[in-house]
Amino acid sequence: MANLHIHGGDVYRYPHMLDFSANCNPYGMPEGVKKAAKEAVEKADCYPDVECTALRKALSLKEQVPMEQIICGNGAADLIFGLVLALKPKKALLPAPSFAEYEQALQASGCEIRHFFLREEEEFVPGQDFIEEITEDTDMVFFCNPNNPTGVLKDLDYIKKIAEKCRQCGTFLVLDECFVDFTEQPENYTMKPFLDEYSNLFLVKAFTKKYAMAGLRLGYGFCSNTEVLEHMHRVMQPWNVSVVAQAAGEAALKEKDYAEETLKKIQIEKEILLKGLKARGLRIYGSKANYIFFQGPENLREDGLKQGISIRDCSNYVGLGEGYYRVAVRTKEENKKLLDALDAIQRQSGKEEGLWQKQL
Amino acid sequence: MANLHIHGGDVYRYPHMLDFSANCNPYGMPEGVKKAAKEAVEKADCYPDVECTALRKALSLKEQVPMEQIICGNGAADLIFGLVLALKPKKALLPAPSFAEYEQALQASGCEIRHFFLREEEEFVPGQDFIEEITEDTDMVFFCNPNNPTGVLKDLDYIKKIAEKCRQCGTFLVLDECFVDFTEQPENYTMKPFLDEYSNLFLVKAFTKKYAMAGLRLGYGFCSNTEVLEHMHRVMQPWNVSVVAQAAGEAALKEKDYAEETLKKIQIEKEILLKGLKARGLRIYGSKANYIFFQGPENLREDGLKQGISIRDCSNYVGLGEGYYRVAVRTKEENKKLLDALDAIQRQSGKEEGLWQKQL
Repeated sequence: MANLHIHGGDVYRYPHMLDFSANCNPYGMPEGVKKAAKEAVEKADCYPDVECTALRKALSLKEQVPMEQIICGNGAADLIFGLVLALKPKKALLPAPSFAEYEQALQASGCEIRHFFLREEEEFVPGQDFIEEITEDTDMVFFCNPNNPTGVLKDLDYIKKIAEKCRQCGTFLVLDECFVDFTEQPENYTMKPFLDEYSNLFLVKAFTKKYAMAGLRLGYGFCSNTEVLEHMHRVMQPWNVSVVAQAAGEAALKEKDYAEETLKKIQIEKEILLKGLKARGLRIYGSKANYIFFQGPENLREDGLKQGISIRDCSNYVGLGEGYYRVAVRTKEENKKLLDALDAIQRQSGKEEGLWQKQL
Repeated sequence: MANLHIHGGDVYRYPHMLDFSANCNPYGMPEGVKKAAKEAVEKADCYPDVECTALRKALSLKEQVPMEQIICGNGAADLIFGLVLALKPKKALLPAPSFAEYEQALQASGCEIRHFFLREEEEFVPGQDFIEEITEDTDMVFFCNPNNPTGVLKDLDYIKKIAEKCRQCGTFLVLDECFVDFTEQPENYTMKPFLDEYSNLFLVKAFTKKYAMAGLRLGYGFCSNTEVLEHMHRVMQPWNVSVVAQAAGEAALKEKDYAEETLKKIQIEKEILLKGLKARGLRIYGSKANYIFFQGPENLREDGLKQGISIRDCSNYVGLGEGYYRVAVRTKEENKKLLDALDAIQRQSGKEEGLWQKQL
């Protein structure tokens, strides 16, 4: 099993490490959310609400999407699996590298997967050529914006072109916006306002990262084609979202200040961390969300672990080889420790000119 | 969506009702479990352990099953869906009535379902004829022991005959023992000791009912064929069991006294409730677990709701018509309220000879 699920955020196999490998909000779960989650334990002798009524109502208000277009899941991954199982695509197109669960969900349903390999020399940015790969025999396209792990962010014009091409081809588009709220102007990048326009669009979001509640498991999705949501309900277990997660989600939506303030702090710390990583000769790509994707020396994860730092080795992503890494932006003190660890690794390597210099 | 998921335990659509429709331990979640769940909220900013290592270790000790033969899920339903998705049976045999999620999981995978209809005149007890229905073109058989909703309990000789026939036919057997711990001598009914003997057997269990933690979502399964478990992991999302559920499960396994004492109390209260229901002319079947299945007058659920009591109308089970009901055994006071409500319903009906008399 160990080899099946190599992801970031595995604090269980790597205890006592400062964890930069998961992309959660470093300021922790808001107190109001913790309180609500703990109170919900008292009501958890009952089955969860299969319709997530109160949570969907709160999401509808917050996100300005009609309640009947909202579905909740046991994390965003649950919805990705449920959607694939509901629509049973025969052929799917995936950019690579991207979030590994798209591929896992498609494989579980026996779907044929075609990869569109993002190119390092194009900084892993997809262009018109990706859109041209969407053809009439493509049943489903996954697109993550900003992308995970690269952090490459595409503008709405581009995303609309994908959605348009998908519509022409009878293709269903799964757009993962789990990290869009960490970008500087989410409202300029989200396809939320165009849900009604594209009935072939499913938008994936999560509480996981924004509210640092990865361990509670809560994701949600939007789709204006409510038949798709009905179909998902038919192929998913009724009680997938726990009583605790539903209560925590409702509480999180009330935490307006927490989200705004922490996102601002993360943006400030990110600029400092980016400079620090560049100054150490690492080659940065994309990185428009709350994590930084870079190319660096081999074995950097192992070297980091020796320094008490866990970073995400991205070499097991389809479309990436050795030497690619992802680090979350964490607090000022933690980011300093990451940079100090990199300096220690450099000193030990005996190199003089920075940790690593990309060969041009 | 409302029509898709009609189950017991829906306290959200029916608030302020005394709930007999879900089969959970009426003595509530043990304090130790609540405490552990609340403490776990503090650690839920991290992703859950994808391998459920600590929980599986504890389960292994408690259940005396090797750790590598154990898999955990987001409730038993998660494992049922995962198993079907992993093995992709083409033809399956299901007794009817039985737990509705078997059918839902099989339909989600496009499996052809053959029902074996249990007969009222045989008190819904399956016999040799069920075993004969297992043929070489049967890929999967589901069997729930004791059965839900009937509570019919079959002995180990019978279950072994099913397992044996399945083995001969190359059929995979999913045996649901979620309620076996509520029977009087679970050790005489569980197939747990025979896991190694039958590599075609998957055994489903849950914390839900025994520890009254339905809202936390935690089920588990045993299979000696670890390839089946590996395959399940490939088709299920890695983080399916929340940090809170894993911690609560570990704590529950330490609650030896709670389980023993509450099960004893439930057995005592069950005898009293059984007598009360019989005295009111209701026709009882099976009912070897912590719930009672009976035939009674039509509209009893609606009449009960008017009395503040929610019972499970079983008419939407495949294989049952109108007039079948299931009630959980609850505390002495609550069971008394149920009987009082039935008396009130009888008085309002104007009948003299008990609530209902089965026509013989």
